[in-house]
This record gives sequence, C-alpha cells and structure tokens, in this order.
Amino acid sequence: MPDSFDRIAVLGLGLIGGSLLQALARGGYTVTGYDPDPVEAGAARGIGYTVAASAFDAVAGADLIVLAMPLPHLDAALEAISPSVAPNAVLTDVGTLKAPVLQAVRRRLPRARFVGGHPLAGTEQSGFLAGHPLLFRDAPWALILEPDTDLQAWLSLAVLLCDLGAKPVPTTAAEQDAAIARVIGLPHMLGEALALTGLRGGELGLSLAAGSYTSGSRVARTRPELVATWCDGNPALISALDDAIAWLTSSRDTLAAGGSVLPLAEAGHRARMEWERREFGPVDLPVDAEALRQHGRDGGWITAVVEKDGPELGELRLLGMRPVR
Amino acid sequence: MPDSFDRIAVLGLGLIGGSLLQALARGGYTVTGYDPDPVEAGAARGIGYTVAASAFDAVAGADLIVLAMPLPHLDAALEAISPSVAPNAVLTDVGTLKAPVLQAVRRRLPRARFVGGHPLAGTEQSGFLAGHPLLFRDAPWALILEPDTDLQAWLSLAVLLCDLGAKPVPTTAAEQDAAIARVIGLPHMLGEALALTGLRGGELGLSLAAGSYTSGSRVARTRPELVATWCDGNPALISALDDAIAWLTSSRDTLAAGGSVLPLAEAGHRARMEWERREFGPVDLPVDAEALRQHGRDGGWITAVVEKDGPELGELRLLGMRPVR
Repeated sequence: MPDSFDRIAVLGLGLIGGSLLQALARGGYTVTGYDPDPVEAGAARGIGYTVAASAFDAVAGADLIVLAMPLPHLDAALEAISPSVAPNAVLTDVGTLKAPVLQAVRRRLPRARFVGGHPLAGTEQSGFLAGHPLLFRDAPWALILEPDTDLQAWLSLAVLLCDLGAKPVPTTAAEQDAAIARVIGLPHMLGEALALTGLRGGELGLSLAAGSYTSGSRVARTRPELVATWCDGNPALISALDDAIAWLTSSRDTLAAGGSVLPLAEAGHRARMEWERREFGPVDLPVDAEALRQHGRDGGWITAVVEKDGPELGELRLLGMRPVR
Repeated sequence: MPDSFDRIAVLGLGLIGGSLLQALARGGYTVTGYDPDPVEAGAARGIGYTVAASAFDAVAGADLIVLAMPLPHLDAALEAISPSVAPNAVLTDVGTLKAPVLQAVRRRLPRARFVGGHPLAGTEQSGFLAGHPLLFRDAPWALILEPDTDLQAWLSLAVLLCDLGAKPVPTTAAEQDAAIARVIGLPHMLGEALALTGLRGGELGLSLAAGSYTSGSRVARTRPELVATWCDGNPALISALDDAIAWLTSSRDTLAAGGSVLPLAEAGHRARMEWERREFGPVDLPVDAEALRQHGRDGGWITAVVEKDGPELGELRLLGMRPVR
C-alpha cells in the first residue's frame, strides 16, 4: 500500500489551508500549521491546533508538506523551507493554477517529490475562521500527474484525499489549467462584470437588485488579488472569454434587431441541466499513469486504493467513478 | 386611509402567483386563485386554497385582480376576464417588464384602475409547489406610478404590499424596465453564457466545476421561455450588454497581452461591496406622485401609510426608507 503520512505540515492557514488543517486533525493525522499572519495563526492556535513559529519549524520532520499560501508568496516560502525539507518528504499545494506552481517548485526544489493539487472547494470568503473541517467532503480535487511525477507519492496523496472525503481527479497541470479556465476563471470574470455593470443602473436598480444579481455577483466578493492569481497567465481563459463574448454579442445583436434571446436561454438551460444530470458509475483502474490521466480526462475520479495481489505498486487496485451515459 | 381589499383574485398560480395566494391568505385576506393548468390549480386546491374553475369566475366580485400569468398569456387572459371585471376593481400584475403589460392593459381594458407591479422575489424554480407564503418578505416590489395612475389605487396596493412584508418601490414602467435590464436581464444573459461556455471544457472541466460555476449558472435553470419574456424587447438590456461585453473584452485583451485582470476584479469587488454596504434611513414623504417617483429613483421604498390630519389623500403621511451616505 502507498505510504501514509506520519507528520504533516500545512503552510498558510487561510480558508483552504486552515480547513485542511482542521480536516487532517479531525481525520487523526498529526498536523502542524503555520501562517505568517498572526491573525490566522492565532485563530488556529486559539481553538487548539498546533501552529509552529516559522515555516522552517513547521516543515522540520514532516513527511508531507502542503503549500497553502497565495501564489505570490510561494517562491519566498519555498526558499525559506528548502533547508529543512526532509529528503523523502512529499510536497503538494492547493493553488488554482497548476503550471506556475510546478515551475516554481522545479526551480527552487528540483529534487522534491512534488504532486500539485487543487481542491475545488471554498467560497468567496477568506481566512481561517471562514473554513471548516468538512470543506472538502465530496469536493473534486485535481491531483497532478505529470510524466515525471512520483507515482508512489501521487497514490499516497490520493489515499489521503479519499480519507478526507474528497474526489481526487488525475490530470496534468496543463489540462487542469485549461479546464478550470471555463469553470473558475470565466465565472469570476462574468461575476465581476456583472457586479460592476449592475451598479451603473443607478440607485433604483440597486434597490431592485435581488436573487439573480446577488448570486451572479457573489464571486465578486472574493479578494481581487486572489481572483487575479486564478486568472492571470492562463491562456485557456482567453478562448473561454472569446466564447462567452461571442454568445453575448450575438444575443445583443439579436435584441437590437427586435429578436429574442430564446436561443441563448435554451442553449444555456440545456447545458446546465445536462451538467446536473450527469450520472456516474464505478470503474476498476490499473496503476498506470497514462490510464489515470485518461480517466481524469473522461471526467472520472478515484474513490479508493486497495490491495489486490499484494502491497507493491503493481499489485494495487484503484477504484474510481466516471460518467456513464 | 386608502381602501383595503375585500376580495382578491390571483390569476396564475406559478411560483409568484402561487406564493402571493398563500401570502394573502396567511395575511387574512379573502383570496381566490385560478390557473388553467390543472397541475398548478390542483396543487393549490389540494392544500386548501380556494381555486375557481375559470378566470372569469375568479374575477367576479373581486376588488383586486392580480395578473400573475406569463406575459405571452396576458392578452388572452385580459380578454377572458374583461366582461366580469367590476367597474371599480383595481388591477395589478407581477411581470418583470412593465412597459408591455401597461400597453396590453391600456388596449384591452382602457378604463381599468391598473397599477403595474413587479416583485423582486423568486428563484430559478417554477410552479406552485416551489413557492411559499413568505417569499415576498423584505423583497423590493416595483409599483408603477405613471402620470395617469390612480393614486388612491396605488396607495391601496402599497398598503397591501407593506402588509405582506414587501418593500414597494415607486417608479415608472420605463424607469423600472431600464433598471432591471442591469440586475435581472444581464445576470440571466451572463448566467446562460456561463452555463453554455463552461460545458465546452470537456468532461474534465465538468467534473471540476464547483462553487463559482454552480452559483454563476444557477439562473440558467430557469425555464428559457420565462427568461426570454424578461429580456426581449427591453432596449436598456442592449446597453447593459454593451457595458458588460466592453469590460470582458478589455480583460480578454489584457490577458492576451500578458497583463492582469486585477483592474476588473478590483472594480467588480468594489461595486459589489458598495452595494452590500448601502445604508438606509427613514424618510417622511408627501402624497405626491412626482415626489414618490423621485423617492424610487433615489433608491427608496415605502414602509407605511398612516393618517396624519385625516383619512383623505392629502391628509395621509407616507413613511419610507432611502439610502443615506
């Protein structure tokens, strides 16, 4: 069976890192947190979690290190911890875009057993106090499997994530970044545009704003600098925006010509309902990186890692779920 | 004091009409519903509400008639009820766009005491069973005050709406239609575009779609033909779309040039937070149509109608709330 982790360090105790600290402690793992912000660190310490005085201390002796700081702070954090990272430690992260993290780790810690990760969980809120230990239950969690990823480390993390109730999705950095352009970057861009353009209707419009404005602009509550780290430098977001702009422009022109927005409304409705109605069935997967990546590409995730013929890599059996139609 | 209503008819028992039937009954009003769809009529009748066998029957003897059918059915309904509408009855409606309703009523029932209305309540769901009697509590409710609107009828409706816990907003058909283009039409267009464009990311993207996609495309669950009636023929939606498209295009070009979406994210965030942080204070209003319309334009609403010097129109006092900054 893949190794389990004896001592985990979580660096960054915001919404995601803080929730992970809580989820791991709840799952019986030995976990130490760290956050340079005394507010976040104090919030976690105040309700009884172990919080180290420095990233260096948190990481010392850890066999799993979770990088949960905002992307702009990643490089400095890697530099600070690099002397105390144990040679065999597994590193992972929880950032939205995977390509920039992969590059930074390869540059700073070229020999690290790094497996990028991205939990599709969270809200528009920030900070330790906005989190909770069940945040990742049933949440998809992109788990990056590059050609040079250590498969043993990847499987160990997959086991851990299943243990937290999350759904590990095997994919590459490039494929996950392209996919989330449409389901994270684009909804944030549309939400910001709505928040802003809605405001231009004057006080009457502001007082009439209700459900559709409120839910459509909810993500504009997110701290803007976080939104930028989820969008900037992702080329797939450009084509996602092009597609959305083309639909909006076509509806705009149709309205101007006295026509109906019904075609867009019907297509959007059909898309949303098809998404909601997806059905999934169990599947048995080989322990093979390319087969796993294809499983992720097909919309599947991992549900369990079990011994089939023995404890070695080639003797394991992976159970998963995937769309069936 | 303005008249109160002794017998109310609600025509159309979908989400809004059905909720209104329940809210009125709960408020102690005598109310009869009608819906041509036996499913909706049966649902209301099944839990004890009075439902007439025809629109004609429902309307007979009513001193307030609420038109709560979808816009495309309005004209036929007006034709069906016109012989049984009492000469002094007040008519109102609950549709999203006010200009087309106003035109239809002026054409079909030119002498009706009509006061258009639009409750800013509801969800993406449809049908009687999706509604509930508290749907309008704290909901803004545009109440149309045209130069030729009967002020006595308008005040009677305002009292009724306050009684249901709603916030009557005095405005004209043209002004409300322009305002809701930005806070109803636009969020629906953006939600449809997101639902649709998100789907183009393949199965991996569909499995990674989470909070921001889910809330951003929620309104795409609405029946498409309803969305079309809220958008089609509203010229203000064209300029709202132009504004949103301009922001999205600018961010798209910035991304393509290697820049950051931070300016859009900051502007959107600021707009949303300013909206959330609006504060309101009480105000005393004269019973004067133009002063009331200005109050709505300024983002205000009515909270109560009380006697000041006597029961006559000119002796009343209107209490309201409006933004204070």
